[in-house]
Amino acid sequence: MSRIAIDAMGGDYAPRAIVEGSLWAAQEYGVGLELVGKENEIQAEIDRIKARGYILSDCGTKGHKRRIKIDVDKIDYVITHATEVIGMGEAVGQSIRKKKDSSIVASVRAVAEGRCEAVVSAGSTGAAMAASLFGLGRISGVLRPAISVTLPTMNKPVVLIDGGANADCTAEMLAQFAQMGNVYAKYILDIERPKVGILSIGEEEGKGNALVKDTYPLLKELHDQGRIDFVGNIEGKELFVNKADVVVTDGFAGNVALKVTEGTASMLLKMISREFKSNILGCIIGLMAKPFLRNMYKRINWEGFGGMLLLGVKGISVIAHGRSSSFAMKNAVRVAATTLNNDINKKIADNINR
Amino acid sequence: MSRIAIDAMGGDYAPRAIVEGSLWAAQEYGVGLELVGKENEIQAEIDRIKARGYILSDCGTKGHKRRIKIDVDKIDYVITHATEVIGMGEAVGQSIRKKKDSSIVASVRAVAEGRCEAVVSAGSTGAAMAASLFGLGRISGVLRPAISVTLPTMNKPVVLIDGGANADCTAEMLAQFAQMGNVYAKYILDIERPKVGILSIGEEEGKGNALVKDTYPLLKELHDQGRIDFVGNIEGKELFVNKADVVVTDGFAGNVALKVTEGTASMLLKMISREFKSNILGCIIGLMAKPFLRNMYKRINWEGFGGMLLLGVKGISVIAHGRSSSFAMKNAVRVAATTLNNDINKKIADNINR
Repeated sequence: MSRIAIDAMGGDYAPRAIVEGSLWAAQEYGVGLELVGKENEIQAEIDRIKARGYILSDCGTKGHKRRIKIDVDKIDYVITHATEVIGMGEAVGQSIRKKKDSSIVASVRAVAEGRCEAVVSAGSTGAAMAASLFGLGRISGVLRPAISVTLPTMNKPVVLIDGGANADCTAEMLAQFAQMGNVYAKYILDIERPKVGILSIGEEEGKGNALVKDTYPLLKELHDQGRIDFVGNIEGKELFVNKADVVVTDGFAGNVALKVTEGTASMLLKMISREFKSNILGCIIGLMAKPFLRNMYKRINWEGFGGMLLLGVKGISVIAHGRSSSFAMKNAVRVAATTLNNDINKKIADNINR
Repeated sequence: MSRIAIDAMGGDYAPRAIVEGSLWAAQEYGVGLELVGKENEIQAEIDRIKARGYILSDCGTKGHKRRIKIDVDKIDYVITHATEVIGMGEAVGQSIRKKKDSSIVASVRAVAEGRCEAVVSAGSTGAAMAASLFGLGRISGVLRPAISVTLPTMNKPVVLIDGGANADCTAEMLAQFAQMGNVYAKYILDIERPKVGILSIGEEEGKGNALVKDTYPLLKELHDQGRIDFVGNIEGKELFVNKADVVVTDGFAGNVALKVTEGTASMLLKMISREFKSNILGCIIGLMAKPFLRNMYKRINWEGFGGMLLLGVKGISVIAHGRSSSFAMKNAVRVAATTLNNDINKKIADNINR
């Protein structure tokens, strides 16, 4: 059985939501767990779930919580005690080096030492990334690991890479992101021949900033070699219309795109709710409309999409949202679990070093 | 009376929507027009409106169109014949130089020659920008003009600068964008002491790409000199929560943010509509919910916000959306008209050269 290391102390709702979500995932996807963090706190959460027999979750609907039965006795888990925790605001480089017994560093170590095949953390994104980089190392030939994020659209999801690991990039790095994203879309999302685009301003070749213009010919070359199916520039508004399955960008623009998507969606939903609340009739219609809006919300809610995958490191590292609920955490573990059985890192190495 | 030059041939729905929207604006905001383009086509549109006495518009609601009375005889307009049109796909630099009698180049000329005080175009953004730059020149001291876009949020609007004029920027350029955006928010949006932030990834100082890190101290210095109220990094998801009134960024990230906002909103609204259409009850509730959703849509619809303002050129240049309807065009002319009476370019020059 595959085992996944869990940073049980990382995230705004740790350890409760993290332990609940991991056990839920372990039960649903048949994986083992190594829960890393303060032993007594983790054990207390497990005891609580065991005594109750269930956890409560809204399953990403923002609606009523329902009971999810958890049979703790059937779950294969171990607890590894780690004494320290890295906080959200701490300087990343320092804390990783100094806090060798922090839950995130120790859970990465569980992968590095071969006890686990993947690590999932909802702690500080910077710390989780740095710990994975230092603890696991890069796949040979990979210039820089990058964050791959799977975003919901009207139809099938789109992979954005880099979602924020590398604020400043070179064209060579972006060309590798394209290859890594291509492997991910092909083997994890089962898209036979993923269309790969580059995030830009303006649709035609020659539009964009210096980085895009430098990267374009490299992607064209990969296309001509049959290594990717390059479809050219993708504008921000085209992210969600499935013009490309994989969209390559530097970590700055990628993270801006990601966060703007989150911000726009959140504002719109608030505006709709405010509009319904503007009079009594609206309140009534709003109540009737709620199940439909909830269905829609469930479709786009990041919690359902699980975590971001750090591609290019030796091992599998999933970085979950800091505000992860048990449902979000369950899905982050699912991302790790589906990635496990695909030997994706070997495929990345083969692609990059061809 | 102030006169505004209109590129009557620019935009997907030109000349009809452009002529309709300009006449509407002229009537509503009391400005004169110089309509530039193919004389017979423009005259035919005016004759049609005159014969009917009204135009039809949904006023940005995506709902039923209603009649807007237009009294053509009371509007002060002249037509300037221009024989050429620059298409959306044409190479910008070349077409601007070669097509001296294109509607966009000729309408900028109307400002350069002093007959008009502002120019509005819904044609190719690149061509409108280049024509304005070459035709009007930069305000003395301004390194690069930038596009200022006013975005809707839950409460008051936020100014994003640069929205796409300069794909590659230096820290010095961004520091000037901050000053230009500050002047705009202060004198056009009437915000007494605008909060100025810089778009970044991560909230704390020191987070971001090399450009943000280089710009941060310059903005701090302007803050310490009392020239702007710098509030630090703004993440993508914070764009809409009024943490800052002005958000500075390079034209690449700015345009990505802008287009992602548009794409996300459009996808969400389609998803909501699809959700309601999933069963008969949904169709009925959806019909009842429509007026509320329409109110919300009206609030965020870019058409209501008019055009983007090119700040830093000698003269006023408003670039409207290529898909501008008459309602969008009316609002683009409104942006020009409200900017006219504020002597904003003198204030920019004073700020930059202090």
